[in-house]
This record gives sequence, structure tokens and C-alpha cells, in this order.
Amino acid sequence: MTPEVDINRPDFAAIEKAADRIAAHAHVTPVMRSDSIDTLAGASLLFKCENLQRAGAFKFRGACNAVWSLSDAEAARGVVTHSSGNHGAALAMAARTRGIECHVVVPKGAVRSKVEAITNYGASVHRCEATISAREQAAETVRQQTGASLVHPYADARIIAGQGTATREFIAEVGALDALIVPVGGGGLVSGTAIAASALAPGLSVFAAEPAGAADTKASLLSGERIADFAPETICDGLRALVGAVNFEIIRDHRVEVLTVDDEETVSAMRLIWQRMKIIVEPSAAIVLAAVLRHRERFAGMRIGLILSGGNVDLDDLPWVPHFGVDA
Amino acid sequence: MTPEVDINRPDFAAIEKAADRIAAHAHVTPVMRSDSIDTLAGASLLFKCENLQRAGAFKFRGACNAVWSLSDAEAARGVVTHSSGNHGAALAMAARTRGIECHVVVPKGAVRSKVEAITNYGASVHRCEATISAREQAAETVRQQTGASLVHPYADARIIAGQGTATREFIAEVGALDALIVPVGGGGLVSGTAIAASALAPGLSVFAAEPAGAADTKASLLSGERIADFAPETICDGLRALVGAVNFEIIRDHRVEVLTVDDEETVSAMRLIWQRMKIIVEPSAAIVLAAVLRHRERFAGMRIGLILSGGNVDLDDLPWVPHFGVDA
Repeated sequence: MTPEVDINRPDFAAIEKAADRIAAHAHVTPVMRSDSIDTLAGASLLFKCENLQRAGAFKFRGACNAVWSLSDAEAARGVVTHSSGNHGAALAMAARTRGIECHVVVPKGAVRSKVEAITNYGASVHRCEATISAREQAAETVRQQTGASLVHPYADARIIAGQGTATREFIAEVGALDALIVPVGGGGLVSGTAIAASALAPGLSVFAAEPAGAADTKASLLSGERIADFAPETICDGLRALVGAVNFEIIRDHRVEVLTVDDEETVSAMRLIWQRMKIIVEPSAAIVLAAVLRHRERFAGMRIGLILSGGNVDLDDLPWVPHFGVDA
Repeated sequence: MTPEVDINRPDFAAIEKAADRIAAHAHVTPVMRSDSIDTLAGASLLFKCENLQRAGAFKFRGACNAVWSLSDAEAARGVVTHSSGNHGAALAMAARTRGIECHVVVPKGAVRSKVEAITNYGASVHRCEATISAREQAAETVRQQTGASLVHPYADARIIAGQGTATREFIAEVGALDALIVPVGGGGLVSGTAIAASALAPGLSVFAAEPAGAADTKASLLSGERIADFAPETICDGLRALVGAVNFEIIRDHRVEVLTVDDEETVSAMRLIWQRMKIIVEPSAAIVLAAVLRHRERFAGMRIGLILSGGNVDLDDLPWVPHFGVDA
């Protein structure tokens, strides 16, 4: 599967079309803020809550756009993808909005709650080994057997355009920003973000927050060429993908700057968001706040937009400890 | 301290005045819903997110109303209360909005994060033993020493009127409901809710969800007299207070029905809200969903309003277990 080769880069018009296409299905997510986090950051932070998006992540935008971009004949044969989590769940739910079949190839080791969501939304799950080649091969096999349309998690113009709708919506909600920070894994969100931001707010700096243990995008930008061989190690399960070829080109051409963050900082930021904002975000989302807190001096006094990408965590990893204290 | 004796019951006009008084300080909290929880419940549930209120709980409404009800002379001497948590934090933050001193008597065993919040919001914390009499005595001592105005957590017309603003706002947001369910501890929220609901939606049934291990309100209604001697045992740290005298009268006169819930059901409901709605609620808030799920047949097909009272939990009791799984 080499979808990067023949897929065109979407332009802002594609994002506007995507926004129309998904409007009946996707949530307009709220923007939240916190006085106490602003004080800690020394800046004014506006959080776009895509953890409150359908299926719990921004991924629904791209998946929904892809599903509703299909012709009726294509749609009748269903869709297929490979995903460890949010994209698979998002595609499953998007397929359901059109009443079509969805196949998701899931590698071993994927987060349990995300796999459960894929099943709950009615998709067929196909297990495979946890390598990129095993995933691509398994998806290709399903595609040949069913005639389903392949919807790549990020290296796909329909996906990029769909993800770009989050920034279009965000800017409409909050107006002018000094900086916009989103996480980067495969690069679907950040490439869509860069295209939308450059059209709507040409001077706006776009940053991508990347785990230090999965900083292939940073390394690719430094070397000028996309690194396609890298073993990620990070708690951010949504950011372990290597940046896609088309995504890398868009990120490079729009001069997106990558900020790397250690997992410990991400976990601290995640706890801070849970505690102060009372919303559940996954590590891959909290990384954007960690990036601001790590570069406090640089962002001081700015009005910053941050996209909280998702909220799908395994609560079983967070055992609730009942404490029957005294008192009323 | 026997505030129940000389404090009048507020009417709906007092709630409207409270709404005006707190408008500049309190958040208008969002209403959220979840398809998957509706499916589980077999009903249409609308959640008023007071966990997203300032200081993380509806308590800010009443505290803010009380603080801004004081004359300038009274305000100059500050406020004092006793509270194991949310009311103390709320009063501390409310006092800060008026720039006045706040003293909070905190019994041993209070939830750590709630005590931290009280301190962070700038109030003076006074520790005492975890009995009602020790709390009242300590608050009275502070009152005599400082001249501060006592703001009881629930048996106070200003508090009841302030809490009633949540329902006024809720009904304005969602329109007609078949039922409205709120938690009951001391009864500040439910008494304000009953007054607001009876004025705005006379036919609307108001229910109070109460932990089975702290069901003094249920027992009081059954016996016709307020039970003032009861040892609560429940995970719902915000619902361990005995119902106040004035609160009990209002609850009884408005024919509020109490639904008791076991802690296990409340914890399950809490996890469900975290997982499906991606928001943090404390057990004392999740109990309202547990009440619906326990009485599924009774609420089947209804359009039900639920007030999620707060989101202040100790995340230290939920150790994050990093899991460095494979995959992208």
C-alpha cells in the first residue's frame, strides 16, 4: 500500500467541501480554557476539545469526509483501513453514518478500549502483527477480497481535508491567535491544520508537538528527507506512526515547527488537564499543553490555540481506589 | 451553630436575584449528552455539567450568591464556613471574587485535592476533628474572633437560592423535561432545584439520588421527621452530610422523591461517564446516572435532566500506569 504516491494534496477548498460534507454528522466541539492553567503557562490558552468529538477524537472528521466522498457504487463495497485505535473507531462510526461495511486491521498491542470501540461501532476487526508491512498487507488482502475502498489513516487527501475542518471551526470560534499547536503522529491533523491556517490566518505560526521517543517528523525536517525507518517508543499511542510522505511535504512547505516533548511532561500535562479542566484527554492530546509548558518563555503572553486531539484512554489502567474516609 | 432556626426559605424571586448576582462570576455550564449512554438507559438524558463550574462544582453558585449578598461592612469582616471540600473551595473562590477574607474549617479525612483547592484559592484553613460538633464549634470560634459571616454549606437561604440557579439555567437551556434528578447530601442543591422547578415547570418530577450508605433523607421522609443522628458510609464524599432542617422541609413540601443507590452502581456510572462523555465527574455527581440505570423501567423513554454536581476527585487515587505497548 503506497497511497502517498497517487494522492493529491488537498487545498483549502477541499477543507471547505469537507466541512459541508461532515456537518450533518460531526459535532461542533467546544473551546475551553482554564484560569489556573493560563497562570501556570503565563499565556492565554484556548483548547479545542476534539476529545468531545464523536468517537472521542478529531479522527472522525477525516473518516467521515472520506466515507461521504465515495460514490454510491464505491460505498456499497465498504471501506477498509489499518489502525491501532482512533482512526479505526472513527472510520467504523463514519461508515455507520452511511450504513456501509467497515473493515479494520488492528495490530497486536493496540489499546483495548479503542479496539472495543471499533467493534461496538459495528466494524469487522482483523488482527495482524504489529509491523507496518503486516498491517498494509492485511488491509490489502481485505481490499482485494471485498472491493472495499482503502482509507489510509493520514496519507490521504480526504483525511487531511477532513482533519483541516477542526482548525477552520476553531478559528471561526476564537478569532485571531498568535500560535496554533497540534500533535503530530502520521501528520493528518497537522497537515490539514497548516492548510487551513495558511488560508484563514496567513501569519499564524503552526507548531506540531511530537513525543521525544517518536520524533521522526522532527528528524525528517532536520535532514530534509522523510525518515521511513524508526522504532517509536512513547506513551502516546496515537502518535507512534511515522509521518506520511504527503503529510511531510505539507508540513515542510508550510514551515511547521516541531516541538519535542518527553513522556513525563506529557503525563504531567494530562493530569493537569484532568484536574483543572475536568475533561478526559489521552496522552497524545495532552502533549500540546506539555509543549507550551516546556517552552514557557517562548510562548509567554501569547494567545495560543491548542487542539486536544482525543480522549480515548483505557480506564482499566487507572484502577479506581475507593476511599471510604470519614466526614461529611 | 443552628442556622436552620432563623433562616427563611428562599422563594423563586430569591433564585432570580441570585442569578443576577452571580452572573458576572459563575460559568453558564454546558449541557452534554451521549448516544451510547442513552441507549444503555433507554431514555434521553441531558447532563448539566456543573463539574465544569468554577471551582469544579455547583457549590460556587450558592457561595457566590452568599458572598455578594453581604453588605460592604459585613464583607469587610470576611466569611467563614466548615466544609470537607467543595463548599469550602467554592466559598474561597467566591470570596476572592469580592477580595475578602475566607476561613474554612476542614475536618480530618477530607479529600486532599479539595483541601488543596481551598488553600490555592487563598482561604485560611483551620483543621478540626471529623465530627459535626467539632466543626461547628471551630467555625463559631473563628466567627467570634474575626467577625466573619458564617456561610453554612446548605442550611442557608442564600446558598439554596444560589444552587437553584443551576436548574433555572438548565431549564432555559433544554426546555421541557419529564424528570429532573440531582444528588442529595445536605440538601442545598435539591431544595434549590425543587423551588426553581416548581416555579418554572410545575408538573416536573424532581428526584434526589442518595447513597444507600447515607440515606438519611430517605429515612427522614419515611418517618416524617428529620433524622439528625446517622453515621454515613459511602464513597460519595460530597453526600455524607445529614440533610439540613430547612432543606428537609423544602424537599418534603415539594414532594421530592429519593432514589437510593449502592456505591458499586455509582462507581460504574462514574466510569461510564468518564469513558463515554470524556469528562471527569466525582462519585457524588455520577450517582444521578446510577439512579436512572437502577430504575431503568421507570424512566424508560423519558427526557430526563441530570445535574452532574462536581468533578473534584483525587487523581492520586488513580495512579496512571504508563503502558508502552507496541505499534503506531
